Amino acid sequence: MTDEKGDDEAPRIPSLEERTTKSGRLPGNRYVRIHHSSGFRRRGGLYVAEEEALRPANAAGRVYDVIRRILFGRPLSTEAEEGERLSVLTGLAILGSDNISSSAYATEEAMRVLALAGIGAFVFTTPIAVAVVGVLAIVVLSQSQVIRAYPNGGGSYIVTSDNLGTLPGLVAAAALLIDYVLTVAVSTAAGVQAISSFYPELHAYVVQVGLVFIALLMIGNLRGVREAGIMFAGPTYVYIASLAALLLYGFFRVATGDVPPAALPPLPFGTEGEVTLAGPVGALLILRAFASGSVGLTGSEAIANGVPSMEKPEPRNATITLVIMGITFATIFLGLTFLAQTIGTIPDRSEVETLNSLVTRSLVGISPFYYLVQGSTAILLALAANTGFTGFPRLASVLANDRFMPRQFAYRGERLAFSFGIVALAVVSGLVLAARNGSVTELIPFYTIGVFLAFTLSQSGLVRRWRRLRVHGWQWRTGVNALGAVVTGVVLVVVLVAKFKEGAWLILVAVPLIVALLLAIHRHYRQMQDALVIERLDDEVAEPKPPIVIVPVGRLDRAAARAIAFARSISPAVKAVHVATSEESANEFRERWERWKGKVPLDIIESPYRSLVPPLLRYIDDIDKRDARPITVVLASFVPHSWWEWLLHSQTALRLKASLLFRPNTIVVDVPYHFDHGHVPEQPR
Amino acid sequence: MTDEKGDDEAPRIPSLEERTTKSGRLPGNRYVRIHHSSGFRRRGGLYVAEEEALRPANAAGRVYDVIRRILFGRPLSTEAEEGERLSVLTGLAILGSDNISSSAYATEEAMRVLALAGIGAFVFTTPIAVAVVGVLAIVVLSQSQVIRAYPNGGGSYIVTSDNLGTLPGLVAAAALLIDYVLTVAVSTAAGVQAISSFYPELHAYVVQVGLVFIALLMIGNLRGVREAGIMFAGPTYVYIASLAALLLYGFFRVATGDVPPAALPPLPFGTEGEVTLAGPVGALLILRAFASGSVGLTGSEAIANGVPSMEKPEPRNATITLVIMGITFATIFLGLTFLAQTIGTIPDRSEVETLNSLVTRSLVGISPFYYLVQGSTAILLALAANTGFTGFPRLASVLANDRFMPRQFAYRGERLAFSFGIVALAVVSGLVLAARNGSVTELIPFYTIGVFLAFTLSQSGLVRRWRRLRVHGWQWRTGVNALGAVVTGVVLVVVLVAKFKEGAWLILVAVPLIVALLLAIHRHYRQMQDALVIERLDDEVAEPKPPIVIVPVGRLDRAAARAIAFARSISPAVKAVHVATSEESANEFRERWERWKGKVPLDIIESPYRSLVPPLLRYIDDIDKRDARPITVVLASFVPHSWWEWLLHSQTALRLKASLLFRPNTIVVDVPYHFDHGHVPEQPR
Repeated sequence: MTDEKGDDEAPRIPSLEERTTKSGRLPGNRYVRIHHSSGFRRRGGLYVAEEEALRPANAAGRVYDVIRRILFGRPLSTEAEEGERLSVLTGLAILGSDNISSSAYATEEAMRVLALAGIGAFVFTTPIAVAVVGVLAIVVLSQSQVIRAYPNGGGSYIVTSDNLGTLPGLVAAAALLIDYVLTVAVSTAAGVQAISSFYPELHAYVVQVGLVFIALLMIGNLRGVREAGIMFAGPTYVYIASLAALLLYGFFRVATGDVPPAALPPLPFGTEGEVTLAGPVGALLILRAFASGSVGLTGSEAIANGVPSMEKPEPRNATITLVIMGITFATIFLGLTFLAQTIGTIPDRSEVETLNSLVTRSLVGISPFYYLVQGSTAILLALAANTGFTGFPRLASVLANDRFMPRQFAYRGERLAFSFGIVALAVVSGLVLAARNGSVTELIPFYTIGVFLAFTLSQSGLVRRWRRLRVHGWQWRTGVNALGAVVTGVVLVVVLVAKFKEGAWLILVAVPLIVALLLAIHRHYRQMQDALVIERLDDEVAEPKPPIVIVPVGRLDRAAARAIAFARSISPAVKAVHVATSEESANEFRERWERWKGKVPLDIIESPYRSLVPPLLRYIDDIDKRDARPITVVLASFVPHSWWEWLLHSQTALRLKASLLFRPNTIVVDVPYHFDHGHVPEQPR
Repeated sequence: MTDEKGDDEAPRIPSLEERTTKSGRLPGNRYVRIHHSSGFRRRGGLYVAEEEALRPANAAGRVYDVIRRILFGRPLSTEAEEGERLSVLTGLAILGSDNISSSAYATEEAMRVLALAGIGAFVFTTPIAVAVVGVLAIVVLSQSQVIRAYPNGGGSYIVTSDNLGTLPGLVAAAALLIDYVLTVAVSTAAGVQAISSFYPELHAYVVQVGLVFIALLMIGNLRGVREAGIMFAGPTYVYIASLAALLLYGFFRVATGDVPPAALPPLPFGTEGEVTLAGPVGALLILRAFASGSVGLTGSEAIANGVPSMEKPEPRNATITLVIMGITFATIFLGLTFLAQTIGTIPDRSEVETLNSLVTRSLVGISPFYYLVQGSTAILLALAANTGFTGFPRLASVLANDRFMPRQFAYRGERLAFSFGIVALAVVSGLVLAARNGSVTELIPFYTIGVFLAFTLSQSGLVRRWRRLRVHGWQWRTGVNALGAVVTGVVLVVVLVAKFKEGAWLILVAVPLIVALLLAIHRHYRQMQDALVIERLDDEVAEPKPPIVIVPVGRLDRAAARAIAFARSISPAVKAVHVATSEESANEFRERWERWKGKVPLDIIESPYRSLVPPLLRYIDDIDKRDARPITVVLASFVPHSWWEWLLHSQTALRLKASLLFRPNTIVVDVPYHFDHGHVPEQPR
């Protein structure tokens, strides 16, 4: 920093002579100095903007500011980031809620597929549930390894691109981006559906209620990570507690031989299935049921992805959270499956009442406790959408830092959240929800494919990593991850094949398209960087020469005089140009011009076809041909008092500016003349 | 003009030293000179832009240019205006067609009202028609006086404001503006209805076909007055000739006692009327019928309004045209009324078939001649809408010149037409047509009220004029115009009262609103003029001082280097400012900056809340407090190759620019860095 003296020294503004005798060289560095009163304090050589400096100056801005603070809270400084970290307790709620909430519907999804072979096929539900929990165990194990290997946040994108290369990494990223969007859509829809189990009038408004939920989630997340965590802790723990109580009560009744009769759904599946379980078709059906049940694995990578948002020591806290999450999910999922099987609950073909609701109703009837279970499930499912809001903006920011996504995604907003990603996610997932009309089952194939594509890639990446690094125990690590890769790969293929016609093919289109888009963005930023980088920073910079200045003048008024005065103040090579539509008006203008002592030569173009912009552009071209210096066009622009007054002025200046924007080596200067500021000095002095 | 030497002298660009030693004064006026090759020729001290100078330089622009030329024709120079004038023949077609075409429906409109008292009341049709022609005679007489008094075009607005004052003039103008819009809507609807008389399937598509007509009229008028005239001459004269033949044939058959039986409409009126003709109610009904028939007077002011578009000598040609128009209208109107009465034709209650069609069908049956009459009527009615297109843009341009309407209305387009007014009229009248669903009878009250309000005002204005000027024969002139004012005033009041509930009240709302709008526009332009005018043109202009230049730099790259170089080239008082979000990045930036030899002092603002624009604005405010010179903010702006690349750049510069736009005494300079131009020199040299 060049400013070494005290701050109280008065600023020194050099006189015109002083500056011009030195032929444009700076006489010193201290001629303009900032106050350190208004919103800035000094630290070292820096001006540090305080919160005060953020407040808008005008009344409308201040009203907007107050509204924004009410909605999103006070701005947080970057230093406040540590305080925004998650404990194990809030981490489980905010990062684990997606996975835990899957326990509310995973059993039902598997049973729906089995129902195609008749309700007799439901005997396979428990083995499938056990298999799903087995896969989850492998996934949790491998995620804990990811946490240790990538303590700065190890999403599938990072793990894959680090170990398998950029392209597979981008495939994983694309799959995850889709997945996060679908997480929001699926969870929101599932939450609304859960509420409609005990409030059926809502069933017709799944989309509308879903959109309101998404908007609330968006606002919550824009308020910041910690406040979102507080919002989530309640419902998550109420869900865990109420489900635990339900399971204990159920187990107790089963153990005492007091099994209640199964409550009937509005439209139960029948015994007559369309498919026989014998032969390869039956085997495929069971695989499909397994694949559907695997929806319970979704959301399990949120913790590994979000390590940096945990309290210190991040890896340890993340691992603890991960394990608690896995145990919680497995317990509720297996417990519900066991109870559904024992009671003999049959899922609802009409998708109005959930299996979870049926099991609860069988055990406790329509009691306050039933409402507690259903209510907390509904809220948790809706809030599980938040995993999308945690994952998407973070992944997008990582991609933006790697220059695969627009850099806006990398900026933290006033509340330290990645605002741009949060808003983008809310918009896109809202569109998806509306487009698919809120049906969960229809959305799940997309959702599952994305998750398992990312899992398969990151597990494969870890296999490669262990074989390369050969750390302690690399053999068993390789084995675990290879098994994980194979299992998740099988699920991927099964879902893809089973749901291909129902829309899974769309993923095969969407992922390459998104990857191509990410690569195109990357190429753009690379090219831009190449074009913009200053290769030799130490090179002497040439002495600048004053530009050629052209001032188009439509009418000789104060605004024009101001523009000309400015033009003269920045260069001695100024030329005014006027376009007249007739010779008379041209002569009239010249006469006025010569009476006026503007001291600038004037060219007049007569435009018998009455067009203004094209002849001016030609004129500028002609002048440009004669000189290599940049052409500077100074425009007098009139700033009216209110918006409707804009309409009363022909937008010639605007059109000229638009035409000049893409002209190389041309600089456009707007000299505004403010209409509303009472008396404005005719000349800048 | 300062350029007195020959054009071939090479331009003289002063060296930096030469300019700076003279401390910013211009060394001469001839250092930049235009080529006179490319699209310009010289005349006197002027550069005259030739048609070539209008051609766009890039390919997309040229394609657009070709399409525009096909639609609207080649640009016409202002000098070509004389060639665009109208002869009596084309003048009658283009300015008289509205009035003449009214003869096709005026009889029917009067009979519809009389039908309320039963078909026995039709005996009043002929007296009413005679009365209408009497009023027309007075109107034509007074219009011919207007032509003599206002050879530069004497619309009701000009006559009224000249003689009665601005406010009554604006009332007339507002009424006429409404009227022109309705002329277009009414005539188009009537034309489509006439076609649907012999092609009933069209009846359901009145609005759609009408909108297509309006679009075609718009394009025709944008092509210019003369081409529009050629378009109109055909249909007008075919209509006059075929109606003349029909009337002659009809008179012959009546004279020879061979009166044909009346053709029956789809839904004839019955003998049982709802109203009796005895008493004041009956008298009011006859007055209303007269008012409805007076629709035949509409359009008669078009010629007086359009005097300047006639060939020389304008007043004489205009008067001849006016008289021919009156005679033509009167003949056809009275002739059709007489034949309808003699044959005993009864109008169609369902509005599907016109009276004109019924009379023709009674006389000649469904013959080729029937189709000729109906076809030419239909086309003429549609084209009569053109009177609106002739009147509205002209009146709007007069109002714009008087600064009561946005000045865009006063500009002539490439084809010498008032393009802005033409397009505005097409849009507004299309909306009216669509809103009223194309029903003529419903639109006529509005239409008639506007016409007669303007007539009453201008006739009163003339009365005042004659009494003031006391020219030769002022007594009888006063008498004629006083009678005209009274008669048109009576019609006005009758229509207003009779149709008040049906929507005529809307005019009483619309006229004051439009007048208020015109006055508001005027006030704005007046205030602007007051603010902008240079009071003492001869005053010495102060020597300009170089501005304080602030260059916000986000990243030290070529674009920033270019912006800084430009800033240095325009002022010695340059300061760069960087906003960093952390102390580390601030120090990093400063290190790079100090290695770089940009020769500009740097201030760094640390923004712990990560916002960029508010601290920058504060910073600029602080610098502004110290210095009265205008603040100039130089922004490096990156111009990407294609539109989607815009999205990849945060629009900080744009937001800063928007915030600075309304800041007084602040000038924003964009230094664009073009991404697509391969190698761009790092510094302007």
